[in-house]
Amino acid sequence: MLSVTIIGGSGYVGGELTRLVYLHPEVKLKATYSKSQAGKYIHTVHPNLRGILDMTFTDYSPIELATSSDITFFCLPHGQSSKIIPEIAKSNIRIIDLGADFRLKERSAYSKWYGFQHPAPDLLNEFVYGLPELHRKEIATTRKVAVPGCMATSAILSLAPIVREGLDDGRIIVDAKVGSSGSGGKPSLATHFSERYNVVRIYKPTGHRHTAEIIQELSLLQKRNVEVSMSAHSVNMVRGIETTSHVLTPNVPSVKDLWKVYRAFYSGSPFVRIVRDLHGVNKFPDPKFTIGSNFVDVGFDVDQETKRVVAIGALDNLVKGAAGNAVQCMNIMLGMDESEGLKSPPLHPV
Amino acid sequence: MLSVTIIGGSGYVGGELTRLVYLHPEVKLKATYSKSQAGKYIHTVHPNLRGILDMTFTDYSPIELATSSDITFFCLPHGQSSKIIPEIAKSNIRIIDLGADFRLKERSAYSKWYGFQHPAPDLLNEFVYGLPELHRKEIATTRKVAVPGCMATSAILSLAPIVREGLDDGRIIVDAKVGSSGSGGKPSLATHFSERYNVVRIYKPTGHRHTAEIIQELSLLQKRNVEVSMSAHSVNMVRGIETTSHVLTPNVPSVKDLWKVYRAFYSGSPFVRIVRDLHGVNKFPDPKFTIGSNFVDVGFDVDQETKRVVAIGALDNLVKGAAGNAVQCMNIMLGMDESEGLKSPPLHPV
Amino acid sequence: MLSVTIIGGSGYVGGELTRLVYLHPEVKLKATYSKSQAGKYIHTVHPNLRGILDMTFTDYSPIELATSSDITFFCLPHGQSSKIIPEIAKSNIRIIDLGADFRLKERSAYSKWYGFQHPAPDLLNEFVYGLPELHRKEIATTRKVAVPGCMATSAILSLAPIVREGLDDGRIIVDAKVGSSGSGGKPSLATHFSERYNVVRIYKPTGHRHTAEIIQELSLLQKRNVEVSMSAHSVNMVRGIETTSHVLTPNVPSVKDLWKVYRAFYSGSPFVRIVRDLHGVNKFPDPKFTIGSNFVDVGFDVDQETKRVVAIGALDNLVKGAAGNAVQCMNIMLGMDESEGLKSPPLHPV
Amino acid sequence: MLSVTIIGGSGYVGGELTRLVYLHPEVKLKATYSKSQAGKYIHTVHPNLRGILDMTFTDYSPIELATSSDITFFCLPHGQSSKIIPEIAKSNIRIIDLGADFRLKERSAYSKWYGFQHPAPDLLNEFVYGLPELHRKEIATTRKVAVPGCMATSAILSLAPIVREGLDDGRIIVDAKVGSSGSGGKPSLATHFSERYNVVRIYKPTGHRHTAEIIQELSLLQKRNVEVSMSAHSVNMVRGIETTSHVLTPNVPSVKDLWKVYRAFYSGSPFVRIVRDLHGVNKFPDPKFTIGSNFVDVGFDVDQETKRVVAIGALDNLVKGAAGNAVQCMNIMLGMDESEGLKSPPLHPV
Repeated sequence: MLSVTIIGGSGYVGGELTRLVYLHPEVKLKATYSKSQAGKYIHTVHPNLRGILDMTFTDYSPIELATSSDITFFCLPHGQSSKIIPEIAKSNIRIIDLGADFRLKERSAYSKWYGFQHPAPDLLNEFVYGLPELHRKEIATTRKVAVPGCMATSAILSLAPIVREGLDDGRIIVDAKVGSSGSGGKPSLATHFSERYNVVRIYKPTGHRHTAEIIQELSLLQKRNVEVSMSAHSVNMVRGIETTSHVLTPNVPSVKDLWKVYRAFYSGSPFVRIVRDLHGVNKFPDPKFTIGSNFVDVGFDVDQETKRVVAIGALDNLVKGAAGNAVQCMNIMLGMDESEGLKSPPLHPV
Repeated sequence: MLSVTIIGGSGYVGGELTRLVYLHPEVKLKATYSKSQAGKYIHTVHPNLRGILDMTFTDYSPIELATSSDITFFCLPHGQSSKIIPEIAKSNIRIIDLGADFRLKERSAYSKWYGFQHPAPDLLNEFVYGLPELHRKEIATTRKVAVPGCMATSAILSLAPIVREGLDDGRIIVDAKVGSSGSGGKPSLATHFSERYNVVRIYKPTGHRHTAEIIQELSLLQKRNVEVSMSAHSVNMVRGIETTSHVLTPNVPSVKDLWKVYRAFYSGSPFVRIVRDLHGVNKFPDPKFTIGSNFVDVGFDVDQETKRVVAIGALDNLVKGAAGNAVQCMNIMLGMDESEGLKSPPLHPV
Repeated sequence: MLSVTIIGGSGYVGGELTRLVYLHPEVKLKATYSKSQAGKYIHTVHPNLRGILDMTFTDYSPIELATSSDITFFCLPHGQSSKIIPEIAKSNIRIIDLGADFRLKERSAYSKWYGFQHPAPDLLNEFVYGLPELHRKEIATTRKVAVPGCMATSAILSLAPIVREGLDDGRIIVDAKVGSSGSGGKPSLATHFSERYNVVRIYKPTGHRHTAEIIQELSLLQKRNVEVSMSAHSVNMVRGIETTSHVLTPNVPSVKDLWKVYRAFYSGSPFVRIVRDLHGVNKFPDPKFTIGSNFVDVGFDVDQETKRVVAIGALDNLVKGAAGNAVQCMNIMLGMDESEGLKSPPLHPV
Repeated sequence: MLSVTIIGGSGYVGGELTRLVYLHPEVKLKATYSKSQAGKYIHTVHPNLRGILDMTFTDYSPIELATSSDITFFCLPHGQSSKIIPEIAKSNIRIIDLGADFRLKERSAYSKWYGFQHPAPDLLNEFVYGLPELHRKEIATTRKVAVPGCMATSAILSLAPIVREGLDDGRIIVDAKVGSSGSGGKPSLATHFSERYNVVRIYKPTGHRHTAEIIQELSLLQKRNVEVSMSAHSVNMVRGIETTSHVLTPNVPSVKDLWKVYRAFYSGSPFVRIVRDLHGVNKFPDPKFTIGSNFVDVGFDVDQETKRVVAIGALDNLVKGAAGNAVQCMNIMLGMDESEGLKSPPLHPV
């Protein structure tokens, strides 16, 4: 069994990763680091894990923890992993960063979108953007992966086939709806139950930071710049993200042609389901049917009248949007079956 | 006291209208017609009204009921009011139709959007589109009002100032999120609690019928055609609609200029609140803060980077999106204060 | 118009009271005191009131505010109103305290249930327990009212007819389910959306403080001690309380007899609805159908098999459970119609 | 691999069982019978299973399906399995019935609680009540198991240690709160989203059928009759059951003593977690922390003041309350590790 360390284990992503590592047949959790919860049992922070893991959080040196493990996952707030990873990177152990610090290739993108002078710009090109559906081969041969943002994953994977096929005219609008777990576990007025229940709160109409990743990855697919606008909304649920992307296009393809394009693109990708039925209640992707699983559902519709393709993505933000995708990357890095430890179907109803 | 009849009183819109008529100091409910619930007490269908109205639904001739009342409201499924209104219209009583049958001016629009040969096309131009904020004067002098669709109200009112100012380039994308009460009171798999809870279900990515109203009204404001695409999503709540409209524009105005445009446009409109704060959790419109009231909240943001204005609308679909707006129209038709009977503030938290 | 001051206006009860005072035709809000929010506009804290009240919170001397108003409401955390009311009480203005400080008659009850040495025990008997259905006459002639706790109101009113009739054997178990708004507006881990959503959290299996009020009031009805056990649960909603009270009894009455007992007891009480249907989905009280109104719904069932009467109460905790009941008391104190300003029917669906 | 057939695979319990069988390493789904959905792909009814099982429902003879499989699960509405099981029972294959038809030992109990003349009373004693924590040994040696009702499982397992220890005085009141998935997948007014959202609906104040099982099993533990009263409430969630049981007792034990009693009782039961913390938000069982898992959490509190022990149970009604418990029984019948295929931890947050 390979040993895994989690740096930043007390947040929701850290908790989900702990759950998935526990389920994984080939790896074992060696340590979980949390400064704020050090000394507490894991289940006091993640009550679902009561009776499962008899282990406490540690605040022992993250660098030593990392360098003595086979794989280290970082689940830290933006700006923190880039402070410690440079030191760890020297030892050439496998690093999977679930934060934003190494997702973008351009140093200037960090200044622009994060208002952040990147402290380790030389490392940016050593990290692979951890979306197996786009970068499977690079992930297989790297030791450093930056796991995408949850909204970015949904938007990119639902749009990628269209963009690579060149069906768009370069102008894409992403309208995202997210559950509360994406905001993390720290209480605030914004997440106070009485204030958060029943909302449709457009918390970021413009300028959401995940936009940078979407632009980067979609532009790569076409070797030209794609212009992406995004608006993000909080909705009344805990897990799940849905992105509806409106793609303006001079030539609207048929549904049948889009089926072919999507099928071809995702052949060999076990966690992408194409959802585009003709009948029934659930003809298009809905995060409800991905909860607890590593699936991302993608679908589409066409509007011949107004020259628009609608691309829909849905996933569980803590699994395919974070921890599950990270484990999928780990599997690929380790040469294992991509699905290892990730076979639980979604729950329904829930 | 003027007498009011409701034709179609057993649905959610009929129930909300009953509640508002009960609260109104100048009118009195004379009869409420429901074929399916005839003979039953109102509170058996609308349990909130228990102990308030000691009255049963009737299936007595809707034409006689209507023609013997001062005002008649129709809350019927699409295609039904146009069958009986022609007969009633002869008597020149005040008619307020909350259905879709008389919203559109063009007979051909019914064929296109509803697949429906309109049985009374001559009446289409006799009806005023019942949005006081756009047609207050016409409403004051008509006897026939067609109350807008709930999503259309949110989209049109959030967009109207921008469009009349000519800030758009003619291309608008509306992304709507709606609560379950918009689907009515009839059980189905789509509204079964276990299936409907926690969804972000894009039930109409293209071709939603309310689009026709939005196009009609926005085009009127500019005397040119506006192209509108809409995608509609069911989200996890009962009341409320939010529309996020993405407006592409060559020249993005400043926030300050938009404030002026919105303020000027809605001066004298007591139910429109402009919500665009710089700080706090609730900087933009959210249906959560309109529940139970006739307010529509409108707001905006600008994206200089991608040449986009985002216009946000939020309302309670059963009040400003239907029954409250209908009462507001009635007040104007009767020469009363526009706000009469509609002064209850929204509930919070709820 | 009489002038009203609210001391403690920034919490949820204070906000609801502000809403109800705004709607009331005979009184006017003069000032709303909040130490923490002083200087801020009311709508920044209560976003539903945007566009309605153009007024800020003040931290000006609560004693001067109170003594220069006709009626003063206190919506303060436990232990605070008893510090300032002694000073104000001298001036003989009308005081309505929505906190717990003057609900109990016995000084020792505060030591026992609240672990609190009451600083003004002499005033305890000057306050009337503000439940109009039990103490209407005393409220009409007092200047000092202590508004009951929200759970206590539901439990007492659903049980009172049974207990006064002597149908119980002195042993009652109350199982309460409450929405999040009962926990107030201050964020914490317990109310963090991701942690609070979907719970059935028994936060107080034994020893809930409202038990003291229930014992006091039920015992008064029978001039003997009634033993009450209560367990309180948080459930997944914002507004609403339901209490299911299990009453052990040697002689189980018939449903018909209970109907008579309840009808007689609540004759003349406009805000109590007896809900006990034979058919349909909503045969018993459910807070869902009281939201936004001052109704308390009470109902019952009998279990001949196990010698048990089940008494059910349901209400909106912020209205009949707090602010609405306070306004009802004010109306009675002022000699007005008990229902003035409280006529809004509940919302449905919501 | 052993072959499994599910008779009644299109309901929520059938769907959950399909999911668990898919995950199980030692058995394989051979057929899933549904009369109403015959011919349709499984994922059209259980959208979570899209892309996982490429199989259709069949309406081929359930008797032949059953008799040619190693294990057959029945997930049928009350009264149906007892019609076909007598024929199948002859062949001595393993039968696990998730319905109510073989849970009770007394023929007369069916007349009393179900108003049902049992068609196969001779078989009642051949079935073992499938609660491994009480009947592990009998399950290991039988070929016929009747899986308990979901509420019964929570109530019995939270109460069993107390009752076996003789701490009760024979009088127990169970107050249950259940999610919507317990009502199944068939739409009705009671489960219509707008009507079901936000409820605390006491749908069965007295006479709930699961009471019969609770009485049977608790009485067995003490060899004397235990009197149980139950009231059941629908609350605003999809999965989960919580039972709060109020146990009247002359001698209230200490918390420490109860810890010992519970620990001893559940030693060797891998799916029972005892939850009774002194600090924190989640000191007692809450279904929120069991979702997706086979855990049942049990806890307790004591009320010295009113001579009451409160026993709390919480579980996922579709897993430990039905399909998961059925798989656990299967594992025991087959001599496998009791936890096989059931190791997924609960999801959190969700």
